[in-house]
Amino acid sequence: MNSSKPYVIGIDMGGTNTVFGIVDARGVVLASNSIKTRKHSRIEDYISELYEETMRLVRSIEAEGKIFGIGVGAPNANYFTGMIEDGVNLPWPTPVPFAQMLMDKFGIPVAITNDANAAAIGEMTYGVARGLKDFIMITLGTGVGSGIVVNGQLVYGHDGFAGELGHVIVKRNNGRLCGCGRTGCLETYCSATGVARTAREFLEITEEPSLLRNISVEDITSKDVYDAAMAGDSIAKKVFEYTGNILGEALADFTVFSSPEAFVLFGGLAKAGDLLLKPLRESMEKNMLSIWKGKVKVLQSELKEADAAVLGASALGWEAKPVNTATVVPPASAAPIAPQA
Amino acid sequence: MNSSKPYVIGIDMGGTNTVFGIVDARGVVLASNSIKTRKHSRIEDYISELYEETMRLVRSIEAEGKIFGIGVGAPNANYFTGMIEDGVNLPWPTPVPFAQMLMDKFGIPVAITNDANAAAIGEMTYGVARGLKDFIMITLGTGVGSGIVVNGQLVYGHDGFAGELGHVIVKRNNGRLCGCGRTGCLETYCSATGVARTAREFLEITEEPSLLRNISVEDITSKDVYDAAMAGDSIAKKVFEYTGNILGEALADFTVFSSPEAFVLFGGLAKAGDLLLKPLRESMEKNMLSIWKGKVKVLQSELKEADAAVLGASALGWEAKPVNTATVVPPASAAPIAPQA
Repeated sequence: MNSSKPYVIGIDMGGTNTVFGIVDARGVVLASNSIKTRKHSRIEDYISELYEETMRLVRSIEAEGKIFGIGVGAPNANYFTGMIEDGVNLPWPTPVPFAQMLMDKFGIPVAITNDANAAAIGEMTYGVARGLKDFIMITLGTGVGSGIVVNGQLVYGHDGFAGELGHVIVKRNNGRLCGCGRTGCLETYCSATGVARTAREFLEITEEPSLLRNISVEDITSKDVYDAAMAGDSIAKKVFEYTGNILGEALADFTVFSSPEAFVLFGGLAKAGDLLLKPLRESMEKNMLSIWKGKVKVLQSELKEADAAVLGASALGWEAKPVNTATVVPPASAAPIAPQA
Repeated sequence: MNSSKPYVIGIDMGGTNTVFGIVDARGVVLASNSIKTRKHSRIEDYISELYEETMRLVRSIEAEGKIFGIGVGAPNANYFTGMIEDGVNLPWPTPVPFAQMLMDKFGIPVAITNDANAAAIGEMTYGVARGLKDFIMITLGTGVGSGIVVNGQLVYGHDGFAGELGHVIVKRNNGRLCGCGRTGCLETYCSATGVARTAREFLEITEEPSLLRNISVEDITSKDVYDAAMAGDSIAKKVFEYTGNILGEALADFTVFSSPEAFVLFGGLAKAGDLLLKPLRESMEKNMLSIWKGKVKVLQSELKEADAAVLGASALGWEAKPVNTATVVPPASAAPIAPQA
């Protein structure tokens, strides 16, 4: 670490809130705040507010001139190009060269990636994945995101978009319609919305009494299902078994790809604890190729939830380089393994 | 390259034959030969014959003292430990510390990995994957093997066994029994034996005439199905459509993992050409997440088949290090991304 620049800024852009904070090399969030992502229809205004509010924090801890870099987790953000490519839930037109725009405003190096990748970097730097060289982060929120770490490095792939495990097809026939336009994607079953969908389906195909019948069916959330299951509701418990079973099958399949030491679960649904984890682990082991049976851990993130998003993004800030990231593209040719004569 | 050691030895151990050759840095196989893998019941005798025959080649091209390293592709060979862990088709007990035994015999650094990984390294070094940093090698032989390259590096995973894509479950219900003991694995459908199984199934469920009915049903091979399809046989053509369709679905799913620039197909079945590739590409595109539609190439290996196995293994020889690989295990802890204060 450059001892004159001991801090990084982490920015987590969500569809509703943008959370940001100043973090030191030990992962302590020294100051944080948030603004509304959708308040401005011009991205320049959004960036201006973000700049003003962030600099207010910087001044509050007397960190002027001591920021090493800025790390950003944002939907569909591309590490290679610095672009936010497709902002489904954002109020301004995309693609936008977000890293470049932030760098121009702050005068500090910026690195961006998608939220799940930022979460993986956060876990590797400050969380339960510290010391792991091969693991897969699975974020279970409104959708299912993932960040894959191989040999200590995040997998970005050819174009920066690798690690969309929420869009592996887990039901080839009669699968649920996904936001991506296809059917049967993992995230239609194993996200918070997937849990609510499963509950609605289960309530429909049986007459069994359930606490969930007290809620208007289209208003049921995964939190309602969790509360009902904790209260002993049989249908709600079956919903978590069904969800854990599908996720376990998927994790067993993912294992053959990169042979991770662990999966790290994060996000609202991961907080369901054993309700989800017990059927998940059983299903994963049952479906695991024999060489990996009993060998792959399933861990829950232990980062404080309020800090996790900012921490994950901030960890990327240590990777930010003082160059024009908007023009950094992966080199077209790889060095051959055989030394040249 | 150490100009005094301009050659590597490549050894490809198959269940039947072990092929070996001397290769230069440009990928020219200067001399090659083979021995029967199963001739000796003691591995020491196998290694002795391999040594004698290989050194005969070395002398024939006056390469004594000019061998940089030895690369080996062998079933279930572990790059990290140097062990052949589970030799299903081998006549001696496993696990064996194969890298160490070869190194003791030859006095030259040895690196080993499984056959599909060796093939991937060969393609990256000498073949169609030259210049690609992110690609996935799929070998379509008796089984389905794979070697995954991310950011120019082979993915070994936590334990050295990553990349078993032949064992992704593609049929969750009523899938075919796999050699691994589970059901529905990709390789039960998309290998040479999978093609023969599909042909037998198709012949059973219909009365449709077929050239394949001239062959005793249990003797049908993928080559027979290929020949029949090339002769216009309708059932045989449907077998390749079915196979290509399943493989295309699988490749679309694999794409979300590492976002490869290309898949490289190798092995007997890959030689079926458009019979397989046309339905495969159609199915892959149809099932692809929209951001990758039309963007991921499917390439066929162009290495001369007689040389390919030796070339792939030999390319690994350039990575061999003059240390006791039998004790090289991956470090337990990764360097954190955040620089230490």
